[in-house]
Amino acid sequence: MLAEQGADARSLGIREAAKAAGLDGVIVTSDESIAYLTGFRPMQLERLFAVVVTEAGGSVVVPALDVGQLTDAPPSLERVSYTAASDGMAELVAALGGVRSVGVEEDHIVFARAKALEQQGISLAPAGALVFALRARKSADEIEKIRRACGVIEDALRQVFAELRPGDVEWEVNARVESRLREQGATDTHALILFGENAANPHGQPGPRELRNGDVVCADLSACIDGYWGDLTRCATVGPPTEWARRAWEVVREAQAAAIEACRVGVTAREVDLAQRTLVEAASELGQCLHGAGHAIGLAIHEPPFLVPRIETPLEEGMVLTIEPGLYQPGIGGIRLEDDVVVGVDGPQILSTISLDLVELSSS
Amino acid sequence: MLAEQGADARSLGIREAAKAAGLDGVIVTSDESIAYLTGFRPMQLERLFAVVVTEAGGSVVVPALDVGQLTDAPPSLERVSYTAASDGMAELVAALGGVRSVGVEEDHIVFARAKALEQQGISLAPAGALVFALRARKSADEIEKIRRACGVIEDALRQVFAELRPGDVEWEVNARVESRLREQGATDTHALILFGENAANPHGQPGPRELRNGDVVCADLSACIDGYWGDLTRCATVGPPTEWARRAWEVVREAQAAAIEACRVGVTAREVDLAQRTLVEAASELGQCLHGAGHAIGLAIHEPPFLVPRIETPLEEGMVLTIEPGLYQPGIGGIRLEDDVVVGVDGPQILSTISLDLVELSSS
Repeated sequence: MLAEQGADARSLGIREAAKAAGLDGVIVTSDESIAYLTGFRPMQLERLFAVVVTEAGGSVVVPALDVGQLTDAPPSLERVSYTAASDGMAELVAALGGVRSVGVEEDHIVFARAKALEQQGISLAPAGALVFALRARKSADEIEKIRRACGVIEDALRQVFAELRPGDVEWEVNARVESRLREQGATDTHALILFGENAANPHGQPGPRELRNGDVVCADLSACIDGYWGDLTRCATVGPPTEWARRAWEVVREAQAAAIEACRVGVTAREVDLAQRTLVEAASELGQCLHGAGHAIGLAIHEPPFLVPRIETPLEEGMVLTIEPGLYQPGIGGIRLEDDVVVGVDGPQILSTISLDLVELSSS
Repeated sequence: MLAEQGADARSLGIREAAKAAGLDGVIVTSDESIAYLTGFRPMQLERLFAVVVTEAGGSVVVPALDVGQLTDAPPSLERVSYTAASDGMAELVAALGGVRSVGVEEDHIVFARAKALEQQGISLAPAGALVFALRARKSADEIEKIRRACGVIEDALRQVFAELRPGDVEWEVNARVESRLREQGATDTHALILFGENAANPHGQPGPRELRNGDVVCADLSACIDGYWGDLTRCATVGPPTEWARRAWEVVREAQAAAIEACRVGVTAREVDLAQRTLVEAASELGQCLHGAGHAIGLAIHEPPFLVPRIETPLEEGMVLTIEPGLYQPGIGGIRLEDDVVVGVDGPQILSTISLDLVELSSS
């Protein structure tokens, strides 16, 4: 994971950014930021994992049973481990070496741990933006990993559309697709292939519903491969598309093209969202606009900046964003089209090649 | 999910416990506690979901795109939704209706949201224990759901041991097993089937390693079915067990029996851990004792109380605990045996029936 851009350089980036922000140090706690700095993605559950970066140096704090997995972490990070007799907080405080003004990933560290640090006289400040400013600009190596994840997902989408038949059961189809993605090396996956009216809920859960003639199928697949996520959505109909499905697909395709076209250096997250929202909301007779244009993607499946109306973050070169407008008609179905897009100096670059077409499946 | 014990009764339990703790209200934010109170398990990502319980009433706060999934939530909970133009915090504050002293799930709510509430003049106190005091004592209906999840996992363990052959690839085996668990209705799964020296790391990741003659196989499977988790571990060897594998298995089996025997009302979490730790640590020539005796299980795969040396929580009737001692020899392998155990008035009750035997697989 750290071949191109050394983890030492990444820790150094955190240290410099912390200094510029007037902080004595930073505690990094999210899985993905720890992976960014150490090459090791923890399985946290209730246990504490952290990377501590101060002016004096850096440490990685892990439960004793995970020390064996730190083989790729840079030697400059001191290994600090704690046994089941500790909750790790004393070891974390010790790793700070007495510094007082410390940044944290404010959207990850929980209230109990923040309070415990504050009770040790440590003053906490939000530093998530500081960490994400580094993580957001992907290296060429990271972009290739996301492209590879997209390639595996494209194959899975083609296969599922080639195989789907009326009578297929939603959760069995999803299980099969996730299994295939894992057989291709995915370490984590989300399959959200929803049939008919279930597709009207963008976060619906696959259930026992069988595929029927006339259904729309909304297939949203994501997979984490070699540490990086890809996330694509394509749609199909069983038999010829209804008038609703055809028109909704056309609107969503145009909205996606407009939002992708907006993915340029300096354009704000809000403006990218607006590019799709204007078109989707204008088609309100076809359904609802239930979410933003998308989100950044990389070590995490959802990363800032989030492409929603309230976010004014300007896009930067090397950001990778999902662009995924949708139209959702309760009781009928949903259409969404999603690609992963690099913000390049020469404009947006799409990391997948699979057609956006509304696939027509065989009816029974 | 809420058939036996109404969600209204559960909200009422939170309200009474909050009052007894001198709190004006409680904000519940974890997936599982929200599921406990509403029958709906959110897909949170970066979005805010919460159940607010105050003296005046209750609300469930969700993104607009998830309102459609609240069909099972009790009518007494007011539905509060927010659009992509909001981060939901204003709606959450409004749902509190002006109360000032509020409990939170301190191991779930993040620093940024806690700070935002505090900046509105709301005083936050840890209330995780209050919520878990209710969730920890499982109803008969919940226990049956965990038993059913264990049954599905047992079948998967039997099948994987019946099929495993030298040359099988670790991550393919894990993918296949997860797929089968999902085909049996699991909505979430973890398969951790590790071969040979990989099994020496209790949180190792399945990789490209092929199964070889002489390997130990440590198969830890968990699955969430109908909202409740089961979690079991069994071991095998390819060909006859080595002297190390046979002796480690005997120690771990005795340690598991001792810890299960300790699962009685009033015994502390620390004491359950000690029952296995004494035996495992006495066999240090066979490997390391890398973790505690286990953890509670239910709506979450890992719930408090955690059975580790620092936790003095006394066990109560209806708690369901994993008991999973292990011995880990670096470079050689690991042996772990895990069952899910109900703390009953008449003593511990094991929710699975599959043999603890060290399975001998065919060698090539």
